[in-house]
Amino acid sequence: MSESPPAPGVVDLLGVLAYAELTGFLRMAEDASRFAPTLTDRAALSDLASTEHAHFRLLSGLLESLGVDPEQAMEPFTAALDDWHVQTAPSDWLEALVKAYAGNGIALDFYREAARQLDPAAQDLVNEVLADGGRSEFAVERVRAAIEADPKVSGRLALWARRLVGEALSQGQRIAAGRPALAAMLVGAHGEDLAEIGRMFARLTEAHGKRMAALGLTPGP
Amino acid sequence: MSESPPAPGVVDLLGVLAYAELTGFLRMAEDASRFAPTLTDRAALSDLASTEHAHFRLLSGLLESLGVDPEQAMEPFTAALDDWHVQTAPSDWLEALVKAYAGNGIALDFYREAARQLDPAAQDLVNEVLADGGRSEFAVERVRAAIEADPKVSGRLALWARRLVGEALSQGQRIAAGRPALAAMLVGAHGEDLAEIGRMFARLTEAHGKRMAALGLTPGP
Repeated sequence: MSESPPAPGVVDLLGVLAYAELTGFLRMAEDASRFAPTLTDRAALSDLASTEHAHFRLLSGLLESLGVDPEQAMEPFTAALDDWHVQTAPSDWLEALVKAYAGNGIALDFYREAARQLDPAAQDLVNEVLADGGRSEFAVERVRAAIEADPKVSGRLALWARRLVGEALSQGQRIAAGRPALAAMLVGAHGEDLAEIGRMFARLTEAHGKRMAALGLTPGP
Repeated sequence: MSESPPAPGVVDLLGVLAYAELTGFLRMAEDASRFAPTLTDRAALSDLASTEHAHFRLLSGLLESLGVDPEQAMEPFTAALDDWHVQTAPSDWLEALVKAYAGNGIALDFYREAARQLDPAAQDLVNEVLADGGRSEFAVERVRAAIEADPKVSGRLALWARRLVGEALSQGQRIAAGRPALAAMLVGAHGEDLAEIGRMFARLTEAHGKRMAALGLTPGP
């Protein structure tokens, strides 16, 4: 139990991350069932999904230790995150892999941004999550192999990756607008400064671009 | 690495259990997404799903340590288990809960039957799986509360539970017929004795009936 109630921004942050992990877990499991071409692939994406579930448990445990009901903390963010998943439902295995890798990467960047604003207990959690960061690397191998076998795949997947991040920014801005305490906390003292939020999103987008290049997805001119 | 190749019955047993856990994990995650009425319920069924994934990892790790490719070991059983899930797709949250509880129970009974035939390394695994046995208890509370609120629910769910076990027996007999080494191992020295297999299924059915009574589901006359 915490001695004083946590700041609303902290509860929001843990809530949005918790729901992102819970729903990420479930959607990834669905993609593994639907699209994995072999049992080995299905198991690999299931591993990644299961890691998301473990992160969800860490976050909801932290919320409970702060005296906050996880369900209440997650509730304000379900619509934005569910909408993101609806807008970015993969149509095949390669799209599912790019989504897993890109989604995981955006989430890790977001944990890093968030880490600067959290107290030591939450820092431990962030470090634990970041330690799992390499788990989506199998997706890189699979996507690169597919592009090598058929270079045309690259353009289609690059467009797909751009859509993933575009929809994420759009839902992210919706969340920032609706949860001023969260936005204020994420960008520190400049919380009221919309341009500062814009700069944070720009950093996330830039990091996303680097990951997409690592996948072999270079956007057209 | 094992010094001598494992018996075909052992590989079959680990393979069928591994695929049951992998696909159980994925189907349960799907049911959690589709039917859970609250985020807390969704998280609770996700916990159970995630435990299945952990068991899958234990089993596939054991197969690998025996020098066996998990995918190859699972392959002979995918059709029967996939068909079971198609025949027993829940249509609402209560059916999903009864399936999770009944399916988990049948699986644990099957681990117990199997345990008698395995070597010490596999015994440890079985004990680890059995230690997780209490995790589906949340389903009991939810189903009993629903029956208390509306006693008519009981008859419908009792029929549903009967269908779950009926389809399981049917797929189980299909597996036993197609994998004689597995059937022989499970019923020990009496492997060629179809009546002995029948008695094993009778024990599983009886245990299932007891669990359904615990849920408050008593079959009609």
